Amino acid sequence: MSYSTFGRIFRFTTWGESHGPALGVVVDGCPPGIGLTAAEIQIALDKRKPGTSKFVTQRKEPDTVKILSGVFEDDRTEGLRTTGAPISLVIENVDQRSKDYSDIRDKYRPGHADFTYDAKYGFRDYRGGGRSSARETAVRVAAGVVAEKALAHVIGATPTIRACLVQMGRHEIDRQKFNWDEVNENPFFCPDADAAKLWAEKLDEARKSGSSMGAVIEIVASGVPAGLGAPVYAKLDSDLASAMMSINAAKGVEIGAGFEAAALSGEQNADEIRVRDGAPHFLSNKAGGILGGISSGQDIVVRVAIKPTSSILTPRKTITRDGTETDIQTKGRHDPCVGIRGVPVAEAMMALVLADHALMHRAQCG
Amino acid sequence: MSYSTFGRIFRFTTWGESHGPALGVVVDGCPPGIGLTAAEIQIALDKRKPGTSKFVTQRKEPDTVKILSGVFEDDRTEGLRTTGAPISLVIENVDQRSKDYSDIRDKYRPGHADFTYDAKYGFRDYRGGGRSSARETAVRVAAGVVAEKALAHVIGATPTIRACLVQMGRHEIDRQKFNWDEVNENPFFCPDADAAKLWAEKLDEARKSGSSMGAVIEIVASGVPAGLGAPVYAKLDSDLASAMMSINAAKGVEIGAGFEAAALSGEQNADEIRVRDGAPHFLSNKAGGILGGISSGQDIVVRVAIKPTSSILTPRKTITRDGTETDIQTKGRHDPCVGIRGVPVAEAMMALVLADHALMHRAQCG
Amino acid sequence: MSYSTFGRIFRFTTWGESHGPALGVVVDGCPPGIGLTAAEIQIALDKRKPGTSKFVTQRKEPDTVKILSGVFEDDRTEGLRTTGAPISLVIENVDQRSKDYSDIRDKYRPGHADFTYDAKYGFRDYRGGGRSSARETAVRVAAGVVAEKALAHVIGATPTIRACLVQMGRHEIDRQKFNWDEVNENPFFCPDADAAKLWAEKLDEARKSGSSMGAVIEIVASGVPAGLGAPVYAKLDSDLASAMMSINAAKGVEIGAGFEAAALSGEQNADEIRVRDGAPHFLSNKAGGILGGISSGQDIVVRVAIKPTSSILTPRKTITRDGTETDIQTKGRHDPCVGIRGVPVAEAMMALVLADHALMHRAQCG
Amino acid sequence: MSYSTFGRIFRFTTWGESHGPALGVVVDGCPPGIGLTAAEIQIALDKRKPGTSKFVTQRKEPDTVKILSGVFEDDRTEGLRTTGAPISLVIENVDQRSKDYSDIRDKYRPGHADFTYDAKYGFRDYRGGGRSSARETAVRVAAGVVAEKALAHVIGATPTIRACLVQMGRHEIDRQKFNWDEVNENPFFCPDADAAKLWAEKLDEARKSGSSMGAVIEIVASGVPAGLGAPVYAKLDSDLASAMMSINAAKGVEIGAGFEAAALSGEQNADEIRVRDGAPHFLSNKAGGILGGISSGQDIVVRVAIKPTSSILTPRKTITRDGTETDIQTKGRHDPCVGIRGVPVAEAMMALVLADHALMHRAQCG
Repeated sequence: MSYSTFGRIFRFTTWGESHGPALGVVVDGCPPGIGLTAAEIQIALDKRKPGTSKFVTQRKEPDTVKILSGVFEDDRTEGLRTTGAPISLVIENVDQRSKDYSDIRDKYRPGHADFTYDAKYGFRDYRGGGRSSARETAVRVAAGVVAEKALAHVIGATPTIRACLVQMGRHEIDRQKFNWDEVNENPFFCPDADAAKLWAEKLDEARKSGSSMGAVIEIVASGVPAGLGAPVYAKLDSDLASAMMSINAAKGVEIGAGFEAAALSGEQNADEIRVRDGAPHFLSNKAGGILGGISSGQDIVVRVAIKPTSSILTPRKTITRDGTETDIQTKGRHDPCVGIRGVPVAEAMMALVLADHALMHRAQCG
Repeated sequence: MSYSTFGRIFRFTTWGESHGPALGVVVDGCPPGIGLTAAEIQIALDKRKPGTSKFVTQRKEPDTVKILSGVFEDDRTEGLRTTGAPISLVIENVDQRSKDYSDIRDKYRPGHADFTYDAKYGFRDYRGGGRSSARETAVRVAAGVVAEKALAHVIGATPTIRACLVQMGRHEIDRQKFNWDEVNENPFFCPDADAAKLWAEKLDEARKSGSSMGAVIEIVASGVPAGLGAPVYAKLDSDLASAMMSINAAKGVEIGAGFEAAALSGEQNADEIRVRDGAPHFLSNKAGGILGGISSGQDIVVRVAIKPTSSILTPRKTITRDGTETDIQTKGRHDPCVGIRGVPVAEAMMALVLADHALMHRAQCG
Repeated sequence: MSYSTFGRIFRFTTWGESHGPALGVVVDGCPPGIGLTAAEIQIALDKRKPGTSKFVTQRKEPDTVKILSGVFEDDRTEGLRTTGAPISLVIENVDQRSKDYSDIRDKYRPGHADFTYDAKYGFRDYRGGGRSSARETAVRVAAGVVAEKALAHVIGATPTIRACLVQMGRHEIDRQKFNWDEVNENPFFCPDADAAKLWAEKLDEARKSGSSMGAVIEIVASGVPAGLGAPVYAKLDSDLASAMMSINAAKGVEIGAGFEAAALSGEQNADEIRVRDGAPHFLSNKAGGILGGISSGQDIVVRVAIKPTSSILTPRKTITRDGTETDIQTKGRHDPCVGIRGVPVAEAMMALVLADHALMHRAQCG
Repeated sequence: MSYSTFGRIFRFTTWGESHGPALGVVVDGCPPGIGLTAAEIQIALDKRKPGTSKFVTQRKEPDTVKILSGVFEDDRTEGLRTTGAPISLVIENVDQRSKDYSDIRDKYRPGHADFTYDAKYGFRDYRGGGRSSARETAVRVAAGVVAEKALAHVIGATPTIRACLVQMGRHEIDRQKFNWDEVNENPFFCPDADAAKLWAEKLDEARKSGSSMGAVIEIVASGVPAGLGAPVYAKLDSDLASAMMSINAAKGVEIGAGFEAAALSGEQNADEIRVRDGAPHFLSNKAGGILGGISSGQDIVVRVAIKPTSSILTPRKTITRDGTETDIQTKGRHDPCVGIRGVPVAEAMMALVLADHALMHRAQCG
C-alpha cells in the first residue's frame, strides 16, 4: 500500500514539493542492461518545462535532471546501462520566488486542494501548492523516459507513444486535419494547425482577462503487442484510468469510443476482424485497443479531460482556515491552460503503465 | 502485485468463472466487531441477479451467498460479527446450461475478450466467457455490502451510496425529473420515470432485433467526510477511476463535471465556498466532491460509460483461432443492455473504494 | 498491504477458521497451461492431515480438496490446465467436535494467541483456536503443490524440494545417518532411522504425561538455478524468513550455517569456488545457497525452530478475560509435537517463495 | 511488488550504490504533524558511521543527511513538522576512494554477492560492492529515526528500542552482567564490560591477521502495547524476520527463546500469566513478546546472526567471470566484524516494523 508510488512491478515513487529544495523519483524494477543517460531524459523534460511560451507559467526552471543511482558504465557496457537497481532521478528547484504566501496560507483557493489538504492533514506546505503542485509531474516525465526504454527492451520492439491536445475550451480539433507532425510546431501540442491558431487567440484572451481554459488530451500508443493487461482488477484500462486520473486537474478518462460508446448499438461498437498480411486485422477501433482488460494489438487510444486552471485573477468567494467568509484572487505565475503541459505527462503515464504491464505479462506468460 | 485483488488496505480478491462450480470473494482487512449476516448481503445480490425482467439475461441464478469465514457469534456478540479475519463469500453457479460452445471456442466474438485472452494465455475457458463474464461482478456486490458497513463503522456515520442509469443509448434522463425514489420502480434503475418508459420501448426494440444498447451509470456518495483520499498516486479519484474501469464493458469514467469541465472557464469551474451552519459550504459541485485527490465533504459524483453488449444476433465478421475469416452470431442468454445490471456493481465499487480510503485515512491521520 | 496474503507476484490468500464450515486458499498469478488436478494436491494434503499416527492430533479430517476455479479442460488441453485465472481451493471442515469451549472463551491459554487476539480485536472466534489454528496450514500445503508445478514450469526444470525434522526436543539427528529415503518411513519425517526410534519413545512419554515437545525442521531445495532473489528488500532469504516465521509456533529461522555462522572466521565461512563440469562449483555451503539475497545454484537450506505445543494437560497459571487469576489445563485433541505436521507446511512455503521469485526474476530479467 | 521497498503502510524505499554520488531513502505514509529535524537523524547516523574506531572500516564518510521533502515549518508549526507527504532523505558519498577495481570486476569474492549479481543481471556495479554494500544501511538508520517518532506518535507513548551485540565469534556475553548503560561505552555496542574487553583482544587479533568475526545482535523493544501485529501472513514476527534477514550478512533470526524453544517442554515454554497492578503480567518471556503474530505487551526480543565479513586478506579459491580458476585476496577498507555496525541498523529495522504495524493496527482496529 503506497501513497506516493505508482505501478505494480515497474514502480516509481515520487517525492518533493513545489517550493522545496528538489523533486525526485525512484524507479524500481527496471530490467538491467538498458542504455540510459541523463541527456535522453533531459530531452523529454525540456518539452514539459515551464516558461517556453507565453501560454505557460513564467516560472523559470531549467529542470536539469541528475541520475544518482541504478546505472553503471565501464569499458564493457557501451555507455551507461541500467543495473536492475533502483534508479534515483533528482531535479533541483531553482526559481522558488520568495514571495508572500500569507494569502494562500489562510484562504482556501476554490478548485485547489487547499481546503482538502487541511481537512486531511491539519495543515499543509502551502508554498506554491506544495505537494499538489503540477511541478511534481516533471519527475513523472523523467520516469516515463525510463519506462519507454524498458517497454521497448521487454517487448523487443519500439512502440510509438504520442500525445496531443484535441480540445481546448469548447474548441475541438478537426479530425480530418489531424497530423502528428504538427504537434511540435505550435505551443499547444495541437495536431491541427488551424485549430492551433484559433486556440492561440482564445487562450490569449483568457490569459489577458485572468481567466483559464480546460482541455482534452489524447494519447495513442501504436505497436503495442496483443496480450498486455490482465482480466478483472489489473486491467490495462483500469491502470490507464488510474494513471491518467492521477494527473493534476484530470476529471475524466475514456478509452477508444469512450462515453460515445454508450450511444452506439452493439453492431456499431463491435470491431469486426479480418485477416490482413496473415495477421488479425480489426476493421475499426471502438475498443481503443483493449478488450477484456488486455491489449488487442491495435492502437491504444486514451483521452483525458483536464479542467481549467483554478488559479485565476477574478476574485472568488471563499473562506479562511478559521471559517470566515472572504474573497480570493490568485496572483502569481500560472498556466492559463494546464492541459498543455499535461500532454508530455500523459504520454509518460502511458509509457509507465505499458512498461509495467509488459513486465507483468513476462512474469506470468513468459 | 495482484491480478485479482482490488484495494489497498480493505482488499478483496475474487475468483471463479461463468460456468465453473462457484464464484467467490475473500474480503481482507475488514475491521472487527461489525454486524454482518448473509441475509443483508443477499438483499444487494437480489438487485443484481439475472432473470428479473425481460431486459436482462434469462439465465436463472438464485445467487445465494454463503459466509464461510471471518464472522463469529456467541451469546456476547449480539448476532454475527466480523472478527478481523478474512471473510470468504461464495455463490454457487446453478444454471450453467449445458450447451455447445464450439462456436465461441473456435471463433472470436468481436467486442469480447476472446481474442485477447487467447493472445495472452494461449487458450481460455470459453464457457460463457469464463473469467471475463459479468457473472464475476456478483461477488463484487457481495463484497460491497461488507464495504458499506465497514465504511460506516470507521467514519462513525452512515453515508448514502446510490447509483442509477442516467443515459441509455443516446437517451439521457431529464435532470429536472431526477428522483432517487424512482430508481427501484423500473427495471432500469432510472431516476426519471418518463425516461424509463422511453427506454423500455427502445430496449425492447433492440432486444427483439437482436441488437444491444450502451448506457451511462451515475454513482453518488453523500455524507462522506472531508479528508478521505491522498495526493498524487493514491488519489480517491484515481482509485475510483480504476475501480469503475474494471467493470465489464466500461469505456469511460468521469468525476463531477468530467469531460464537460474541459469546456468551462476557470470562473465557471471553481466551486466557491461559503459558511453555512458553521461549516464550509460549496456553492456548486463541479469537482464532484474531490479536490487534489481528497474528498471535500460534498457529494462524490462519478459517471461510467458502458458500451453496448457485444453479444448480438446480427452476424459479424471475425476470424477463427487458426486465422480463417468467418462470421459469428452470438446466441444464448444475454443482457441487451449490460449497463443495467452494472448499476449495483458500480455502487458496490464506490463503497469498496471509500471503505479502503476510510481505513487508509485512519492509518495515517488517526 | 494484505493481512492474509503471501507472495509478491505468485500470491496466495487463505481464509477459514478451525471450526468454521471450510478453509480455503486463492492462488493468484499462476502461469497458464500448467497441468493441475485435485488428485495431485490430495497427495500432499494426505501427508499433513491429522489422525495418521498416535503422535499427531486425533481430530479426523479427510482434508479433501476441491478446485473451484482457474483450471480448464477440453479435448485440446490434455487434462486440466491452469488458465492464468485465480485458482480457488477449498477444504471442508468435517470433525469440528461440538464441545464446550467455555474454558477457552474466558481463560487465556499461555503460549497461545488467546490473549493477543482479544487485545487486538476485542473478541475472537475461540473455537479450536479460530484463525490461529494450525488447521489453516492445510491450504498452504495445497497451494504449495501449485507452486511446485509453477516453479518447474517457469525455470524449465524440476527442482527437488524436501523437508524433514532434524531435532525433536533436545534430540538432534546424527548427520552421518541422514537419509532422505527414511523421511517417509517413520511418523516424524525423520531422516535418521535411529533418531526416529528415540523420538518415538520420548514423544510417547511426553504425550502420556500431557506434555509436548519442540522441534527443528530443515528444508532443502536442490536444483534451483542461480539468479533467483533480489538485493536488499526482496531478498530470497528475507522472504524465506518471513514465510517460515509465519508457520504456527515458529520461533526462529536460519539459512545455511545460520546462527553457527556467528562463531566462524571469515576463512571458514566463505564458500570457495572452483569449476566442475564447466560450471561454477562451490566447495562448501555455509551460505545455504543464497548470497546477497540471490540464489547461487547450490542447495537452498533453511531451518525453522518450532516451539513445543502450548496445549498441555498440566495446569498453568493464567487469567480470565475480566482479569481474574486462575489456572487452565488444555484438554482436547492436540499434537504433542506440532513440529511434525509443520514439515509439509515448511516444504510448501519453500515452494511458494521459490515460485514467486521465479516469476519475479522472469519479470525483470526475462 | 517492490524490490527496494520495505513496509506495508509505513513504507520506505532506498536507492544508491556504495560508490555512486549519493544514497537515499523515501519514507512514505508517515503521519503528519510530527516534529522532525535533520539534526535528530544525524545523531543516529553518527552511531553507525564508519571510521569511528579501529574495529570498523576506515572509510571516512561524514554521512550528513539532508531532508529534501515532506517537512514544513512556519510560525504556527513550532519547528519542522512532517506533512504526510513522502520524506526524502539523502546522504552524499564523499570518500569513494579512486582505486582499481579490476580484481573485483573479474573475480568473484567468495561469500559476497559478486557471483549471484552477475548470474542474475548479467553484469554489476562492482565498485565497493555496489548496491549490496553495507553502505545502503546508512539510510535505513535515517529512516528508522522517522519510524521511532511515528511509532511514538501513533501509540501515544514512547517505547524504548535498543540493540546490542551479545556474541562475537564464539564469545557470548555473560547475561548476569548485562547492562544497557555499557552499550555506548565500548566500540562494540556490548552490554557486558568484561566481554567487551575480551572482544577487543580477539577482534584485534582477527583484524591483524586479515581475518574476520561473526556476531549476534539482540534487539529489544520495551513499552510496545499489546495488539500490534496480525495473524497468519502479516505477523509481527514474520515481518521482523524479513526485516532482520534483509540486513547484510544476516543468516538467522530468532524471537524470544528462538532455537532454544525447540528443546523446551510445553510446560517450560508457556509463559504463565498473573495480574500485577491491575494489568496482565507474564511470569516469563519465552515468547519474546509475540503470540500468534501479535504483540503481548511484553518486551519484544529478537536476535540476529551475522556472518563474519567476507572481505578477508587470506587468499581464497575462486573463479573469474569467464570461468577460470584463480585466487582472490580482498584488500581495501573493511569492517573486521560487520556485526558491530549492524547494531544501529537492526535497531532501525525494529522501529520501522513497529511503526508499520502501529499504522496497520490503527487502520483496522482504530
